[in-house]
Amino acid sequence: METSEFNNSTINLGHGSGGIMTRDLLDKVIFSTFDNPLINQKHDGAIIKFETEIAVSTDSFVISPIFFKGGNIGELAVNGTVNDVAMCGAVPKYLSLAFIVEEGLEMKEFIKIVESVKEAADKSGVQIITGDTKVVERGKGDKIFINTTGFGAVHPKAKIATGNIKIGDKIIVNGNLAQHGMAIMSEREGLEFESTIESDTTNVNHLVLELLDAFGEKIHLFRDPTRGGMASVLSEIAVDIDMGVKLVENDLPIEKQVAAACEILGLDPLYVANEGVFISIVDESIADELLALMRKHPKGKNATCVGHITAEHPKKVVMKSGIGGARMVSPLIGEQLPRIC
Amino acid sequence: METSEFNNSTINLGHGSGGIMTRDLLDKVIFSTFDNPLINQKHDGAIIKFETEIAVSTDSFVISPIFFKGGNIGELAVNGTVNDVAMCGAVPKYLSLAFIVEEGLEMKEFIKIVESVKEAADKSGVQIITGDTKVVERGKGDKIFINTTGFGAVHPKAKIATGNIKIGDKIIVNGNLAQHGMAIMSEREGLEFESTIESDTTNVNHLVLELLDAFGEKIHLFRDPTRGGMASVLSEIAVDIDMGVKLVENDLPIEKQVAAACEILGLDPLYVANEGVFISIVDESIADELLALMRKHPKGKNATCVGHITAEHPKKVVMKSGIGGARMVSPLIGEQLPRIC
Repeated sequence: METSEFNNSTINLGHGSGGIMTRDLLDKVIFSTFDNPLINQKHDGAIIKFETEIAVSTDSFVISPIFFKGGNIGELAVNGTVNDVAMCGAVPKYLSLAFIVEEGLEMKEFIKIVESVKEAADKSGVQIITGDTKVVERGKGDKIFINTTGFGAVHPKAKIATGNIKIGDKIIVNGNLAQHGMAIMSEREGLEFESTIESDTTNVNHLVLELLDAFGEKIHLFRDPTRGGMASVLSEIAVDIDMGVKLVENDLPIEKQVAAACEILGLDPLYVANEGVFISIVDESIADELLALMRKHPKGKNATCVGHITAEHPKKVVMKSGIGGARMVSPLIGEQLPRIC
Repeated sequence: METSEFNNSTINLGHGSGGIMTRDLLDKVIFSTFDNPLINQKHDGAIIKFETEIAVSTDSFVISPIFFKGGNIGELAVNGTVNDVAMCGAVPKYLSLAFIVEEGLEMKEFIKIVESVKEAADKSGVQIITGDTKVVERGKGDKIFINTTGFGAVHPKAKIATGNIKIGDKIIVNGNLAQHGMAIMSEREGLEFESTIESDTTNVNHLVLELLDAFGEKIHLFRDPTRGGMASVLSEIAVDIDMGVKLVENDLPIEKQVAAACEILGLDPLYVANEGVFISIVDESIADELLALMRKHPKGKNATCVGHITAEHPKKVVMKSGIGGARMVSPLIGEQLPRIC
């Protein structure tokens, strides 16, 4: 990246004009960072080819603050979409990348975000193939919003669909809940703990690929509980499949400090947004084996079986609480934590 | 669309929460409007299949005002990306659709935009297959931003690449220049003319398909001169191909009122953003025939040959002016008209 000249500058409307300033920013920051044959066409589009079915997913990222403990909006925008594509039972390959920048953003910050996009893309094994940069006037945006759209090759053994879920299926999460949401929230509220709560934003596509290779169609669903948290995702699934979901509170993997932060802020971790976390709903027969495989992977070392699918209370999520009773888990209604992704 | 209950409401942060309010908005406005088997999966992603190479293009739309004479941001977001995919020599098939909405947007306006997206998608023959809706706090956005990413099947006869352009190639535009930019500008400045200047935002993919069917690899390049206008696009091409571009001012198709508006505002129409306009750079041997075919199509009836590729002045665009002289046409540097798309 030839960015020394940008060191003390900010983004201005000219960078979104489509003229020389835009081209200059693209050449020096974007094309030089993402250097690959597809993006190097420098056209408004890119040409790709898939032999398989293609999973497509799009997400806009509007998180505030844009830099947070454990990450920034750039890597989040890659990981979020990479994971959504993986959740379709696919191997993510390509991403498009579109920025809406507020005039006045420090060029240094913009460059840092672009570099994080590149690093996260490399880690996930995806290429940035086409993009767009728009600039809006000061006060008409909030520093930077990023849209990514991801494309992946559907795994030949994948059969991911709510329709395949059966009574008795086990629900497995790969890691601790509520970490991302509470990292952002603690940062916004200025909370301090013995050690810092860091966002666990990361890609899970390599782990997902291992699971698909090993268990194929025995995996009935992947889903990542981002906005709305576990409660909302499981409630949606319960309604879709017309069966019940039973959770066991004591089995939910929640880090002590995160639980403490939730308590201080009066938040239920089941509703807090996650990143780098996904649930697998799998055939009972392979649940233990899958759990064992997951725990060997760095992104699954805290994997836990948190519940199962039941014929009781169709369309409802019920949780056996720590002190023995059972309570209904409703989906989130309004907004608990705005702009968490 | 079951939207009566929304009639007097506005978008609020809960609509972006991922909880029940989000689901409600999606079910009643989005899924009911775009009803098709792919989006109906209601998953975070969609599965598609292409036998051919795929052209992919992404764009965020941040135009202000969001409603303007001749269109609104919804149809612009469809046409813009559909046309970018067509410019790759492809037949657009699918779009993803991502909204960033500012809290407080009138629900009526949101619904009107969604309906325009649907209408424009139908006219272009593309399906909306997956999407995302985020809401940001009042003052952190500007009513609504839309990202669309488009996918098209590359035409079997298409060979679109700057590398194919040769000395003598003709440059043909399908219609009048500067109309979209001046419609937005007149609206912002409150200018009034004998009749209204309307944006010509429209899809051109059906016309492009006819041209590819008829002339295949004799068409060397398509490009749509949106941000930065004709001057910027042709300057970029001249640099890329290391040849010269010669334009003839008297041949540029510009509507009288648009020319007048440009003069009043001190704008050069060559730099004004277009929509529904594209240039074709084609082999000399088919130029007349292509022009004739274009003029039979409603979206090409004002088609004109505006210049050619020359060995003189490599990397430069030179225009023979109306009064006989010649002037260099530089690319746009900073910003002439912010947020025109």
